[in-house]
Amino acid sequence: MKAMEFWFSVGSTYSYLSVMRLSELAEARGGSVDWRPFNVREIMVEMDNVPFATKPAKAAYMWRDIERRAAAHGLPVKVPATYPLPQFEEVNRIATLARQEGWCVPFVRESYRSWFQDRVPAGTPESLAAILPGLGQDVARVQARADEPAIHAALGAATDEARARGIFGAPSFVAAGTEMFWGDDRLEEALEWHTTRGGAHDAAGRG
Amino acid sequence: MKAMEFWFSVGSTYSYLSVMRLSELAEARGGSVDWRPFNVREIMVEMDNVPFATKPAKAAYMWRDIERRAAAHGLPVKVPATYPLPQFEEVNRIATLARQEGWCVPFVRESYRSWFQDRVPAGTPESLAAILPGLGQDVARVQARADEPAIHAALGAATDEARARGIFGAPSFVAAGTEMFWGDDRLEEALEWHTTRGGAHDAAGRG
Repeated sequence: MKAMEFWFSVGSTYSYLSVMRLSELAEARGGSVDWRPFNVREIMVEMDNVPFATKPAKAAYMWRDIERRAAAHGLPVKVPATYPLPQFEEVNRIATLARQEGWCVPFVRESYRSWFQDRVPAGTPESLAAILPGLGQDVARVQARADEPAIHAALGAATDEARARGIFGAPSFVAAGTEMFWGDDRLEEALEWHTTRGGAHDAAGRG
Repeated sequence: MKAMEFWFSVGSTYSYLSVMRLSELAEARGGSVDWRPFNVREIMVEMDNVPFATKPAKAAYMWRDIERRAAAHGLPVKVPATYPLPQFEEVNRIATLARQEGWCVPFVRESYRSWFQDRVPAGTPESLAAILPGLGQDVARVQARADEPAIHAALGAATDEARARGIFGAPSFVAAGTEMFWGDDRLEEALEWHTTRGGAHDAAGRG
C-alpha cells in the first residue's frame, strides 16, 4: 500500500494532536505515512484565512478544545502556547531538510513537545539546541543547510504542490492518493479510508 | 438534569448533520436539548470570519466532507446546497417564533431536509409552503408574526446572549451549563460531557 500523506506545518496548533498520535495509530493499522512539511501560512494569507490571530473568541475556544482533546488522548499540554509561532518559516525549512535526510518525524515530534509541553517555541535557538544533538544533528550545520536556496525551493515546491491539490489548512491527510481530510479530528477517518480503500497492497501482502 | 443547549442558525452547513442526528442521540443518552436559534452570521461578520463564501478550496472541501459524513451516518444529501442561504434572517426569525410556540424542532429539521435533500433553500416561500401546513401552521400568519418587532428583538437578544457567552460559530453545544463545544464533530463529545458532568439529576431521577 502507498503511504498516506500527512501535510503539516510546524506552527499549526491542532497539528500537535496529530503529530503525537499519528505514528502509533498508523502502525496499529499496518499503514505507513509520508510526512510532508509545507508552508500553510503562505496559502492561508493568500486566502485571507486568519483563523485565530484576530479572533479572540475563536482562539480562546481553540486552546480549550486542544486542552480537552489532549487530556482525552492522555497527552500532556500547556496552553495557550506561543502563537503565531515566530520562527514559523525557519522551522519548516528545517523540517524540509530533515525529510530529505531522514530525521523529519522525530524532529517534528520533539519540536511540538518543546512548544506544547515545555513552553519553548519550536524553531527557537533554545528549542533547536535542546533537540538536535539528541537526533545526532549539529545545530550550526542544520541552520546553515536549511537556509540554502535548495531548501527554500523545496519548501516552496511542496507548498505549490499542496495548493495545486486543494490543500488549504493543516493538518491535512491525503488517503488512497486523492481523498483529502482536514483537521486532527479527521485523522482516524483518513486512516480508515486509506487502509480500506488504498488499492494495491504492498509486496508483503499487508493491508 | 438541565437540558444541553444547542445553538444554531438555519444557514450553517455543518448544522445539517447535527440537526438530523441530535434528537436521537440525546434520547439514547436520556438527555434533553434546548434548541436555541441565533444569528451566527451577525457574529461572524463582526469577527470578519468568512469561512467559505470567498474561499473556494475550503468550500469545495466542506461540501465533500459533509457528503462523506452524511453517508457515514446514513443521511441522504445533495450537495452543494445553495449557499449562503438567501433567506437566512427570515428563516431564523421563524425558528425563533417556532421556539416560543413549541414547533421549533420539526420546523428546523424539515427546513434542513428541504435545503439539503430536496434542493429547496430553507425559508423560501416554496419551502415554507411545503413544510408549515404539515406542522399545523398557516404560512401567512407565520410570516406576519415572524416579522413583528418582538421576534426581531428575541432573535437579537439570543444573538447577544450567544456573543456574551463566547459563541462564535454554529453548531455550538453548551454542556453542563458552561462547557462549549463547536462543530458537528463535537456533538457526541458534548453529549458525553453533559450527561456525565451535568450535575443534579431531575426529579424523575434520570441521569
